[in-house]
Amino acid sequence: MKRLLAAVSAIAILATGPVAAQSVDRVAINGIIDQGLNHSEVMQTAAHLTDRIGGRMTNSPAMRETERWTQEQFRNWGLSNVRTEGFDFGRGWSMARSSARMTSPRALDLRAIPVAWTPGTDGNVSGEVILAPMANAGDLAKWRGKLAGKIVMISAPTAATDPTEPAFRRWTDAELAERSGYVQPNNNPAAAERSVQTSARDDFPLRLDAFLLEEGALGWVRMSYRDGGLVHGAGYTHLVGRTPKLPGMEIAAEDYRRLARLTLGETPPTIEIMSEVQFHDEDTNAYNVLADIPGSDRSGEYVMAGAHFDSWVAADGAVDNAAGTAVVMEAARILKTLGVRPKRTIRFALWNGEEQGLYGSLAYVDRHLATRAPLSDPELANLPNGRTWRARWPIQPREGYSDLVAYFNLDNGSGRIRGINAEGNVAAVPVLEAWLAPFASMGATTVSLRPSGGTDHVYMQTVGVPGFQFIQDPLDYSSRLHHSSLDSYDHLKPEDLRQAAVVLASLLLSAANSDEPLPRMPLPTRPTPSDPFAFQGAN
Amino acid sequence: MKRLLAAVSAIAILATGPVAAQSVDRVAINGIIDQGLNHSEVMQTAAHLTDRIGGRMTNSPAMRETERWTQEQFRNWGLSNVRTEGFDFGRGWSMARSSARMTSPRALDLRAIPVAWTPGTDGNVSGEVILAPMANAGDLAKWRGKLAGKIVMISAPTAATDPTEPAFRRWTDAELAERSGYVQPNNNPAAAERSVQTSARDDFPLRLDAFLLEEGALGWVRMSYRDGGLVHGAGYTHLVGRTPKLPGMEIAAEDYRRLARLTLGETPPTIEIMSEVQFHDEDTNAYNVLADIPGSDRSGEYVMAGAHFDSWVAADGAVDNAAGTAVVMEAARILKTLGVRPKRTIRFALWNGEEQGLYGSLAYVDRHLATRAPLSDPELANLPNGRTWRARWPIQPREGYSDLVAYFNLDNGSGRIRGINAEGNVAAVPVLEAWLAPFASMGATTVSLRPSGGTDHVYMQTVGVPGFQFIQDPLDYSSRLHHSSLDSYDHLKPEDLRQAAVVLASLLLSAANSDEPLPRMPLPTRPTPSDPFAFQGAN
Repeated sequence: MKRLLAAVSAIAILATGPVAAQSVDRVAINGIIDQGLNHSEVMQTAAHLTDRIGGRMTNSPAMRETERWTQEQFRNWGLSNVRTEGFDFGRGWSMARSSARMTSPRALDLRAIPVAWTPGTDGNVSGEVILAPMANAGDLAKWRGKLAGKIVMISAPTAATDPTEPAFRRWTDAELAERSGYVQPNNNPAAAERSVQTSARDDFPLRLDAFLLEEGALGWVRMSYRDGGLVHGAGYTHLVGRTPKLPGMEIAAEDYRRLARLTLGETPPTIEIMSEVQFHDEDTNAYNVLADIPGSDRSGEYVMAGAHFDSWVAADGAVDNAAGTAVVMEAARILKTLGVRPKRTIRFALWNGEEQGLYGSLAYVDRHLATRAPLSDPELANLPNGRTWRARWPIQPREGYSDLVAYFNLDNGSGRIRGINAEGNVAAVPVLEAWLAPFASMGATTVSLRPSGGTDHVYMQTVGVPGFQFIQDPLDYSSRLHHSSLDSYDHLKPEDLRQAAVVLASLLLSAANSDEPLPRMPLPTRPTPSDPFAFQGAN
Repeated sequence: MKRLLAAVSAIAILATGPVAAQSVDRVAINGIIDQGLNHSEVMQTAAHLTDRIGGRMTNSPAMRETERWTQEQFRNWGLSNVRTEGFDFGRGWSMARSSARMTSPRALDLRAIPVAWTPGTDGNVSGEVILAPMANAGDLAKWRGKLAGKIVMISAPTAATDPTEPAFRRWTDAELAERSGYVQPNNNPAAAERSVQTSARDDFPLRLDAFLLEEGALGWVRMSYRDGGLVHGAGYTHLVGRTPKLPGMEIAAEDYRRLARLTLGETPPTIEIMSEVQFHDEDTNAYNVLADIPGSDRSGEYVMAGAHFDSWVAADGAVDNAAGTAVVMEAARILKTLGVRPKRTIRFALWNGEEQGLYGSLAYVDRHLATRAPLSDPELANLPNGRTWRARWPIQPREGYSDLVAYFNLDNGSGRIRGINAEGNVAAVPVLEAWLAPFASMGATTVSLRPSGGTDHVYMQTVGVPGFQFIQDPLDYSSRLHHSSLDSYDHLKPEDLRQAAVVLASLLLSAANSDEPLPRMPLPTRPTPSDPFAFQGAN
């Protein structure tokens, strides 16, 4: 039966062109459009996540509330099997308030934020600053004996930049067309494995902390990597037992550079930093939230949409990634409201711990899809899974490896969906094109073969599972919002998020009802080098 | 002799084209270029004004230090007759520190700044917010009885904007050409006079303060007019006896909108504001700083360059207007270092109180150049001069009216000089073109007839004195720096400021040595309406 339908479908494609329907039910899509555009709740969901809950750092009280509230929403909408899946993450950390001021040569409030997972200051910490850039262990020695009683400026100030390009933009058709080109992988497995092992062992933040403590420094400040008064505060010392001893803050670039210039005078400026933070150790597990619309056949196959719902806390984690979270939740609401009865189960996943290393989606992959051989080095074996993942061969598929027939990820901000990254999966292209075809007039036109990275479909890709990331209009995501103190509800685009929810809901339905599973890539095995004779350092 | 030379000059112009030299000494200009580009101190001056002194609010301690330091610099460079000229301004005001936080529904630091010349909070002031937009006296009544114990959000939130244009740009040749077009004045003297009298009487900030006090409000907050987390803090209640009673703060647009959205929930958010400010009443005069390079003939004629050296205090007043100040001072340093002996005196003026209404330059005009007939209305007669200036006829020239042969103003940020606004003075165009000609290859190409406003040449223009403002590359002045919390040294462009100092020094020298005074406009008299039969409201 499946084969016969596939043949009919192939004839239909030949007869009507490359985007002919493969299980695309346009009548159902009309319903999705009506529900998603005329009865949308995506902005209510986004507002609750951003304005009301705010920044959602993994294992913080705000994230615990998010884990609770998102499940409640899924249940209220009638989703099935709403549940969490925990994984080891580390300490929770939250900020109550903070400040930084210059106290001499004049009084001036500075824009600053505590670096995540650094301890608080226990009141004000005041001291002279010293500009002592340290970026790796080799930099420490030259500052020995010079830091006692100081607040240490650890970043080398970079030159200010001029915003000569628009901060906010959409893809042009030409740019989208250019994205479609296939990009060959550039394999150098031995070098990649060495690099994974080196970076897994890299512990500079803690070495720096120990050095500063030993030298009698009072704390440290670093410079924001963006201009415009923005701060970010990302930090990665979340593992139990790995908390630094000294407080650290990030200072806006303009404020940092002013301090740096003033250190060139006779008397270095003094500053006062204050950070009131809390650690939360009741439960060191983080939790993904999952919810299903069960499929009508019992094969165990499912399709899945996901977005990470954790964020940094410089603002409210709006475009990164309340946007994707709200769209995934809205797709669930739309499909449930319409009472769809898909053939395959449709699963909605909210990933946790993405910001510190895609931990939540990796935990899902490792539990349900595939794992990788352990490394023999006992030091490396104790590190979080993700830090060594790519260096471990072979891949060992789990029992559910083939059940996930398509995964769609949303993590590129608030821009509308302009297409999807097929991630080098040539066989999937015509299918994805067919599923996307109804939305060409809404701007979703492009199936790109280019690989994309940095978010929760990546670990699926590493084990050969068809996980795809949407192409979204960039807007001002990278230019000023990503992780920054500007990432609040104001920069969400309601029209774009409604479109994304409609496209996502439709693709999920098409994928869940398609006659054949989406074509897969072969199980990845350790690649041969693309240039076996490349000199080291050239690649 | 003068006539003969003028005739020769006219022949020279005919013989060699429209930009032939009129007293342009290119050998001297070579010296200016060498001193200004190879031995520049303009950035040292700018750094002292911004990094070290910081925001320079008129009559604040920082401004007193600026008045002292700039005179010291002029004296160190050997300028003559370095002096101040005082004028009545009002109270000094300075900020020591401030903060604003949301305390429920969650803890969140807000980006905020006290509004200038509002009182401090005497510790933390905490309360529920109420969104009660009030923009004029007519809005007050509807909030009566609703504000007790509240912190009042007085701005109506506006929609967030998308930065679809580059924040930083330079003029294109086409844009410069377009600027050259003559623009007819659109005169409607009666309407203009009514509007001056109405706005002079407008006292909304104090009426609002009295209303809020009477209603038992705890304080007020307003929304920043720019997005991107920027704040400004401009306020205008600097007159003695006109200080409001309630504290007021400006909150970043994103933070304000979040609060506004949260007021739509069941329980309004609570915030806590703190502002530690000080008033300074030892001396209510503000002081312009003047310095001369004396002319060799004793006619009393002089040329002058000026820039205001006061600023707001959201940041360090760098592009507005340490930039112009440093360029004017650098031009003085260059010319003095070169030992020029100009025919006419060259005067350097640093204007105070510009930000609150061009007070300093007006005081100079009124004292040295021309005044205007007083108004009979005693209420209006007591207001600061500038508030009614344009409504008063006739203009009464002072004895020194004709002595000032050319004034050059710099107050458009850090962009290089691309030309000069001839302000409708058709007769001055060929002369300005000749003076500017050596700098075409440095980008200064354009003499525009378009009028420009908003800074210290304006009051000279109102009395027919040849005061000109330079055309400068806009950079990111208007888009994000002007008056904002980003206006710090980082956004100054050393190459541009060096060019501006060279051009300014050269123009001053050319003007000081020119055989004829720069052609002047007729003494302005009350104009006839451009359209005597226009219906009211149409103009």
